[in-house]
Amino acid sequence: MVKCQAMEKEFGIVALVGKYQSAEVAEALERTARFLQQRGQEVWLEHDTAQAVGHDGSVRVATLDEIGEGADLVVVLGGDGTMLATARRLAGHSLPLVGVNQGRLGFLTDVPRDRMLECLAEILDGHYLRERRVLLQAEVWREGQPVFSTMALNDVVLSRGEFGRMIEFELHVDGEYIYTQRSDGMIVSTPTGSTAYALSANGPILHPRLAGFVVVPLCPHALTYRPLALAHESAVELVILPPFDARLFCDGQTLFEVQGSDRIHIKRAPSGVTLLHPRDYSYFAVLREKLHWSAAPRLS
Amino acid sequence: MVKCQAMEKEFGIVALVGKYQSAEVAEALERTARFLQQRGQEVWLEHDTAQAVGHDGSVRVATLDEIGEGADLVVVLGGDGTMLATARRLAGHSLPLVGVNQGRLGFLTDVPRDRMLECLAEILDGHYLRERRVLLQAEVWREGQPVFSTMALNDVVLSRGEFGRMIEFELHVDGEYIYTQRSDGMIVSTPTGSTAYALSANGPILHPRLAGFVVVPLCPHALTYRPLALAHESAVELVILPPFDARLFCDGQTLFEVQGSDRIHIKRAPSGVTLLHPRDYSYFAVLREKLHWSAAPRLS
Amino acid sequence: MVKCQAMEKEFGIVALVGKYQSAEVAEALERTARFLQQRGQEVWLEHDTAQAVGHDGSVRVATLDEIGEGADLVVVLGGDGTMLATARRLAGHSLPLVGVNQGRLGFLTDVPRDRMLECLAEILDGHYLRERRVLLQAEVWREGQPVFSTMALNDVVLSRGEFGRMIEFELHVDGEYIYTQRSDGMIVSTPTGSTAYALSANGPILHPRLAGFVVVPLCPHALTYRPLALAHESAVELVILPPFDARLFCDGQTLFEVQGSDRIHIKRAPSGVTLLHPRDYSYFAVLREKLHWSAAPRLS
Amino acid sequence: MVKCQAMEKEFGIVALVGKYQSAEVAEALERTARFLQQRGQEVWLEHDTAQAVGHDGSVRVATLDEIGEGADLVVVLGGDGTMLATARRLAGHSLPLVGVNQGRLGFLTDVPRDRMLECLAEILDGHYLRERRVLLQAEVWREGQPVFSTMALNDVVLSRGEFGRMIEFELHVDGEYIYTQRSDGMIVSTPTGSTAYALSANGPILHPRLAGFVVVPLCPHALTYRPLALAHESAVELVILPPFDARLFCDGQTLFEVQGSDRIHIKRAPSGVTLLHPRDYSYFAVLREKLHWSAAPRLS
Repeated sequence: MVKCQAMEKEFGIVALVGKYQSAEVAEALERTARFLQQRGQEVWLEHDTAQAVGHDGSVRVATLDEIGEGADLVVVLGGDGTMLATARRLAGHSLPLVGVNQGRLGFLTDVPRDRMLECLAEILDGHYLRERRVLLQAEVWREGQPVFSTMALNDVVLSRGEFGRMIEFELHVDGEYIYTQRSDGMIVSTPTGSTAYALSANGPILHPRLAGFVVVPLCPHALTYRPLALAHESAVELVILPPFDARLFCDGQTLFEVQGSDRIHIKRAPSGVTLLHPRDYSYFAVLREKLHWSAAPRLS
Repeated sequence: MVKCQAMEKEFGIVALVGKYQSAEVAEALERTARFLQQRGQEVWLEHDTAQAVGHDGSVRVATLDEIGEGADLVVVLGGDGTMLATARRLAGHSLPLVGVNQGRLGFLTDVPRDRMLECLAEILDGHYLRERRVLLQAEVWREGQPVFSTMALNDVVLSRGEFGRMIEFELHVDGEYIYTQRSDGMIVSTPTGSTAYALSANGPILHPRLAGFVVVPLCPHALTYRPLALAHESAVELVILPPFDARLFCDGQTLFEVQGSDRIHIKRAPSGVTLLHPRDYSYFAVLREKLHWSAAPRLS
Repeated sequence: MVKCQAMEKEFGIVALVGKYQSAEVAEALERTARFLQQRGQEVWLEHDTAQAVGHDGSVRVATLDEIGEGADLVVVLGGDGTMLATARRLAGHSLPLVGVNQGRLGFLTDVPRDRMLECLAEILDGHYLRERRVLLQAEVWREGQPVFSTMALNDVVLSRGEFGRMIEFELHVDGEYIYTQRSDGMIVSTPTGSTAYALSANGPILHPRLAGFVVVPLCPHALTYRPLALAHESAVELVILPPFDARLFCDGQTLFEVQGSDRIHIKRAPSGVTLLHPRDYSYFAVLREKLHWSAAPRLS
Repeated sequence: MVKCQAMEKEFGIVALVGKYQSAEVAEALERTARFLQQRGQEVWLEHDTAQAVGHDGSVRVATLDEIGEGADLVVVLGGDGTMLATARRLAGHSLPLVGVNQGRLGFLTDVPRDRMLECLAEILDGHYLRERRVLLQAEVWREGQPVFSTMALNDVVLSRGEFGRMIEFELHVDGEYIYTQRSDGMIVSTPTGSTAYALSANGPILHPRLAGFVVVPLCPHALTYRPLALAHESAVELVILPPFDARLFCDGQTLFEVQGSDRIHIKRAPSGVTLLHPRDYSYFAVLREKLHWSAAPRLS
């Protein structure tokens, strides 16, 4: 993470994205837009957000692609789910994101709602921490052809198929066959995703600065399959063995039905996302609160 | 890992280190020494090994320090324990190590005994894989003074003290207080050590190419303390809270009695060790055999 | 377990059940039928098995219900899956089952195929271990009406629904609200099932003599939900919270689509099943082989 | 648990036991004694407690043995540790215990300090829940002779010896050899202890009504050793293999140094302890608070 100092009008155009269909978010979006305009920023409102919450014409409505091309900063109001979806869509672009949670602290939405305007002002004044997060790229190959491709900021999850039964698949790393596993599936998680689903499947926490990702088996039938952390440059391949079929989830959101013999290639995506945090942000402080770790040092 | 091709007499002086007090090792050492001499190599025998197994005067006896300074290659005959002790002692030096197991495949002693001479010949001919492994450095500070310092190739383990009761300590990372934990202790493990003690404490496997290490709690009283993988450049500090005392083990071998208020600094050591493996070595193949993962791909 | 001694013609009518569509099983069934007839036993062949493997008219073909009513012993040739299905169907009846595995030792099919006839002869001569195993009964209630009911020898599994996303539900025990959980689901397992799916979800092994069952969360979002073993007389209720839907699997075989607000009652079934084992059967010996525990005592 | 109704002067003599050397406990003991005397109860003060906190002569001072013989009810003021020690000492006697915590809710000290007198009044009026908890008995045999014997309400823990290195031992159940394990040790836990140390070693929670106990390995070197729950009537034997030595802890309090070849017999103790709880006590409510499970049912 890098501490940054103000530059002249670093973020001219600020785009707003909100979780849909929430009255509270609508109100917060409006308040934020007005605040930014008063500061002289140009404000854009993301198209689907505008559809959901309505708008009064005082801001420009723009698609995420237009935002990616033209805006200088994206402020996301919602939960980690909204942040994941937005980040994934903007991954090819260089503009940074700020996440404002709507009540409950999130791993990615670390600006608290009740200090929202104050934190945004600080960030716009150039006082923030800048952090780069890595994404995964997943491609499904069928009979030698790519049939699906997506990115994930949290995780790529191979999961039981339509009928909900266990699956059997091979794991390959960097072209080398590693093992065949019968299980409920496999999570491939970035450091960002290591505190999400992978953690509930007994995976380790990976610090965001660690240059790697982790492969976490879901209820493997044999007891010696364990979470395996790999370096960034490694490429993972999962091969579904017929007659099994499976499902592929990326960030718990996009979905693809995987067939027997399909090969899923997973590796670090070429582009990542940039997050801006308030100056007093601490990755471990968020973890401590979310995981109920002891709150304060004991005096010794 | 780097594949290497032969150079003229790359390894002129080969030093032998053996597990002590084993008739089998004595025989294997003698056979190896004779084989190397027949190939025209100069052979040194490590001093304590020589003491234990005896020798006939045909080889030079040298301390590990002398070996570190003067030899070109070290061949270790024994188990992973012998390899750990030797590697730690030679960490400051640049010469590479080869590990020959004495029956049971080791994570570090991957040359099988029954193919020992054949593999050594190949290595001496310049056909091998060269791999760099990282070490940890642990320092205990008491009242502002360093009172103990050591290195570890596998792990630094803070463990219950003389009376065997649980301990309480703080974890700090890069100078930031993270949490206070009551537990049986804490393992800080390299990728090399991640398949040793840390694995039995529910830690993840870290691939040796991953530039990081992992902090694994031992039976923490609260259920939300989990293994935490950090990047290489991170520094960990453990602070024992009085009235607790504890023990520090490095690679399960060196031991230091830690007192309340002692601060243990753990970070990547400036020097690592170089391992040479046979050409057909595979990290995952060793894992697969040791962990009884499925042995072969299913035909699909 | 009770050691038994021979009585005159204890098992007059022996029914055979086989895994379908396996040439090997067909051959083994025929060989077993001939062997039993030569010993003077009356042999029945289960109807669906007969459909699958064919038969020459020398044996009576009977449905599982007819077998439950009229036969004295059931011999199952197949894997644990065949045994589970047969045992569940015969649970209301008192006749005992013997399981013969078709190659790989099973937890329930503990008679090895290559000693099949020898073991059957011993059992028919009255030399066997008799063991009672408990079943679970699961009922789904919707708007005050029972809409599904089934039994399970291994486990009742509440699992993610059609779309494969995590679910949210309440756990009640003996009418008391315990907690609300977000997870991939919940396993309720008998001792018999504790070495099956529940084990891969981090559940404990329950010895078959233990009068209880265990509730094992599947990837719970919070880290403090743990396997919970309850006494036999306890009743568990799972209540799906809308808008979530889920699936109910019993022994991995029967399936019911659960809707939001459905209440699933799970308790010990009134009837169990009786297994007969060869005289030298040991529960722990099977575990030791299946889990690769150390094979033999070390000499000390 | 049994709900009880008042009888005439059920508890004539009430003994008080307190955690030593705590000013707060001294004050609470005094207040409780006065309250009981005003209700016309005879009050005894445990000898070591009296030594620690002093007393004014208005109460009889009695040893725990005298209390066991003569008192009708024991009120323990302190934490679970004080309760464990007292319960173990009184296990041979039939008088019930009530635990009053000194601030933090305990698993065994479930009467909150700020409702102490109110709860005691209710219990003395005969409104309480009566519950029986099982103890374990551990005996160490050396060269055919018993050399140590103790009881445990929570757990018997075989742990690494003086030098803190891993140990190797055999597990036998009911006279049958089960396996040889290399590990940090083994916990044998009652249902009462299953929420203590065993839980932090990945053991399951056993409901107090479950008639069994659980064997939980501590960091086993092989990954397929898992917690094993056994029925009450089972007997466990642990045999230390030379040259290893180990330590035996009972309830984390009594300690015995175990030598190589020692055999440790562990089974259900012939006597248990009786706990009285306030009428509104709920085992699961305590668990919910201690483990931070979700606090309240969601409206559905």
